[in-house]
Amino acid sequence: MEFTVAQIAQLLGGDVEGNASRRINQLAKIEDGTEGALCFLSNLKYEQFLYTTAASAVIVGRTFEAKKAVNPALIRVDDAYSAFSRLLEEYDKALKFSKTGVEQPSFLGEGTEVGEGIYRGVFSVIGKNCRIGANVKIHPQAFIGDNVRIGDNTVVHAGVKIYDNCVIGARCSIYPNAVIGSDGFGFARQPDGSYRAIPQLGNVVLEDDVSVGSNTNIDCATMGSTLIRQGVKLDNLIQIGHNVEIGKHTVIAAQTGVSGSAKIGDNCQIGGQVGVAGHISIPNRTIVTAKSGVSKSFRKEGLILGGNPAMENTDFLRSRALLRQLPQVLPQLAKRVGEIEKEVKALTLPAGEPESLP
Amino acid sequence: MEFTVAQIAQLLGGDVEGNASRRINQLAKIEDGTEGALCFLSNLKYEQFLYTTAASAVIVGRTFEAKKAVNPALIRVDDAYSAFSRLLEEYDKALKFSKTGVEQPSFLGEGTEVGEGIYRGVFSVIGKNCRIGANVKIHPQAFIGDNVRIGDNTVVHAGVKIYDNCVIGARCSIYPNAVIGSDGFGFARQPDGSYRAIPQLGNVVLEDDVSVGSNTNIDCATMGSTLIRQGVKLDNLIQIGHNVEIGKHTVIAAQTGVSGSAKIGDNCQIGGQVGVAGHISIPNRTIVTAKSGVSKSFRKEGLILGGNPAMENTDFLRSRALLRQLPQVLPQLAKRVGEIEKEVKALTLPAGEPESLP
Amino acid sequence: MEFTVAQIAQLLGGDVEGNASRRINQLAKIEDGTEGALCFLSNLKYEQFLYTTAASAVIVGRTFEAKKAVNPALIRVDDAYSAFSRLLEEYDKALKFSKTGVEQPSFLGEGTEVGEGIYRGVFSVIGKNCRIGANVKIHPQAFIGDNVRIGDNTVVHAGVKIYDNCVIGARCSIYPNAVIGSDGFGFARQPDGSYRAIPQLGNVVLEDDVSVGSNTNIDCATMGSTLIRQGVKLDNLIQIGHNVEIGKHTVIAAQTGVSGSAKIGDNCQIGGQVGVAGHISIPNRTIVTAKSGVSKSFRKEGLILGGNPAMENTDFLRSRALLRQLPQVLPQLAKRVGEIEKEVKALTLPAGEPESLP
Repeated sequence: MEFTVAQIAQLLGGDVEGNASRRINQLAKIEDGTEGALCFLSNLKYEQFLYTTAASAVIVGRTFEAKKAVNPALIRVDDAYSAFSRLLEEYDKALKFSKTGVEQPSFLGEGTEVGEGIYRGVFSVIGKNCRIGANVKIHPQAFIGDNVRIGDNTVVHAGVKIYDNCVIGARCSIYPNAVIGSDGFGFARQPDGSYRAIPQLGNVVLEDDVSVGSNTNIDCATMGSTLIRQGVKLDNLIQIGHNVEIGKHTVIAAQTGVSGSAKIGDNCQIGGQVGVAGHISIPNRTIVTAKSGVSKSFRKEGLILGGNPAMENTDFLRSRALLRQLPQVLPQLAKRVGEIEKEVKALTLPAGEPESLP
Repeated sequence: MEFTVAQIAQLLGGDVEGNASRRINQLAKIEDGTEGALCFLSNLKYEQFLYTTAASAVIVGRTFEAKKAVNPALIRVDDAYSAFSRLLEEYDKALKFSKTGVEQPSFLGEGTEVGEGIYRGVFSVIGKNCRIGANVKIHPQAFIGDNVRIGDNTVVHAGVKIYDNCVIGARCSIYPNAVIGSDGFGFARQPDGSYRAIPQLGNVVLEDDVSVGSNTNIDCATMGSTLIRQGVKLDNLIQIGHNVEIGKHTVIAAQTGVSGSAKIGDNCQIGGQVGVAGHISIPNRTIVTAKSGVSKSFRKEGLILGGNPAMENTDFLRSRALLRQLPQVLPQLAKRVGEIEKEVKALTLPAGEPESLP
Repeated sequence: MEFTVAQIAQLLGGDVEGNASRRINQLAKIEDGTEGALCFLSNLKYEQFLYTTAASAVIVGRTFEAKKAVNPALIRVDDAYSAFSRLLEEYDKALKFSKTGVEQPSFLGEGTEVGEGIYRGVFSVIGKNCRIGANVKIHPQAFIGDNVRIGDNTVVHAGVKIYDNCVIGARCSIYPNAVIGSDGFGFARQPDGSYRAIPQLGNVVLEDDVSVGSNTNIDCATMGSTLIRQGVKLDNLIQIGHNVEIGKHTVIAAQTGVSGSAKIGDNCQIGGQVGVAGHISIPNRTIVTAKSGVSKSFRKEGLILGGNPAMENTDFLRSRALLRQLPQVLPQLAKRVGEIEKEVKALTLPAGEPESLP
């Protein structure tokens, strides 16, 4: 895609200083700008780059005054950062939703209905009796099982596997090689020590605006649904066990694992590499710091938890600081006790009388 | 699939009370039952739902006495829970093994032999000179390399990659996007600080009844075999390094990593996010709690291990409890020592004589 | 592939003792050798197997003297271990680069140029305007987006997903189901508690000789590049966030996560299940032990770090040892203090005078 500086200025409601007919074909940071690039200058820490950049245009504030000659065209707007952000979002959206139509070979099962503006990539599979909304993008080599529903404007990236009966909301993003709705890890121990698989017959429900990172797994429920509520954002390589429920607008960083039937509240922030035990509850607005292990339920909303097992983070930090000081503090204390022992012994023995007298 | 209440009662050897011709098309928990659903009532904690459920039939014990009028048909059996479990298993099996035949396009290499009742999904690949048993199900977009053997009734899910020369037993389940037999992580450091890959020419052997979770990796051996013995159950996102050996009926929870050449015994239970160091041994019936780091071999069977580095769990819990108490205990102890020091000093100084007397 | 003992001896510049016309079709450890296998004997600890092995040939040193009769042919060389390693590497290379040509169906976008000796596996996808070097191997079901560049002799394994605009060097290995260039995890919190995705428009650059393990993720930069420098080796199930930079010849073990914008130096060794916080720096030649959490920048090169939060490993080990001793040390110390308290009290109370005198 290529635009002129004038076209971009019009889109942003800005004014051009310099050559408005220059052609823009990429967005870049001002320190990386090359011919054809559009950059922005908001933080004056970066002003030096304005005078040296090879970029073709730079978005600046209306009141900004250049101290030297400037090569790129300037687009003056009220707020340079916001204007650039808007451009990024528009560009991103244009990219993500530019593909439409069906590449062949691809597979579409009987009884499946697809909406307008859909893209079905090459080697993608959609099973039987699915309902796929408008503008849904199914990238190459993605797999969607039978009886799956997907809301409008959802993007399913390459290699994603969504198993039978799952329900995916609108405006979701499922990143490459994520797996949704595979069997939960449920086995019943037999008298001989072997294990027998417990059938996993439920599904996964993602509400609207959910993001699922690459290589992340969300297991189906044993019965009923594993439930990921509106606006939840899951990073890469996360494990969500069967029958888990995650509340609205909760974000979880990479490589965290949530065991079966755990329940996480709304608006929580869970760090990376955290473990959450099965069948426990984490209340709304809880923050769990990276690498913690949450092994029991908490009741109070809005706590910050840390450590393994997780406790209130201030307690955790105090314990941890003491642990670091132990190699100094403990021998010192032992030495002081030793010295007192000697003095007390000296006081309790009659003066001049040897200790080992028969 | 749809059955009448009478058909299900006959299958279970049960007796019907109520309308035996109602049609059943799903299984559900009694609190979730809707028209067409079959539920069960075993734990009387849930009895209230029997009188309000919209389910079409409920399995109950022969001696159960309803306290109010009941809408669904009742199927009376000796043990309601067992009967329902059996139904679940039959249903699950029927689902998992219902697909047969070959979807096109799919790829089958020269010299490969496949058994009866096999399913080969669309865009699946099976390499050269493989031996694939009866009733094996190869889901769409799965990849099987050259010279691979797979036993009867094994299910290979969508997107799984099984590399050359691997041997997979009977009745195994390999979940979506798992990778089996990729190169181990072996590099020899060169004098200039760079690394040279050590060829990884071995394979992976899964014995019968092994389960491998989605996005789990089992690396091939450098030479010889990485060996996963009968009945082992691996959850999702697990890393198994080259030349590892895992004993019979051991279960490992999600996101655990086992480094190269480690050996884990039979009937072990390894929690989630555990790390196991390379070249160490864990004996039979060991339990390792979640997030532990096992850094050395243990000799005694049946221990419970915890912590990082892992120790006997009782020791670990004691250390951890003390660590939590440290912020109280240690300053208190220091205060007591300080007070004694003062008193002892008072005792050793002659009364009334100032300390700094020249 | 099959060779005679004489052919292999010639390749290695060795001399044959015994039947030089025997046929070799596999390489094995001497304790596992069967008919058709070639083994080596370097460490004399394994000499016993020479007299019992069923292998067809064994590589030994020129000066080695057998103590008993030997069944396999012997190939005498200067250094048995090196000779065998060379054979392994040649064999490995022959295997990895033996496939050429295009399997159908596969997908090639408009404007893409591919080099000589390339292999494009069945159901693989290469997007538009890519530049793919000579001898590149794209395995089945791999996906390569638009505008991607790949250097000569790189192997992209089955199911790998490489997104638009990424740049991959020469002689790289990307293992099955790895994901390169998917969106970074960047969201801006909105006043109502929901999150809005920050467009991720950058790419990933892998320099030459990089290895990326199976199911490992490297996110694209927000703008600019996530940069993996020459010779970096990444194990399986690793998470590399957006805008991370990893220096030359650094190796990272499985299941480690590096958060956005972190910078890791050259020649570092990072253990498994390590977490690295965002926006921090780790200097050259740092060693980070397994399961550590690096939460702040370090300045000094060549440190060994351990613990969570990571500190110099000697400090960490000292703290950890003390923590283990606490259950003994602390009660003991408390007991000693209690005893002194009693004695001091006895000394400070006038003899014979009861404590509770009114």
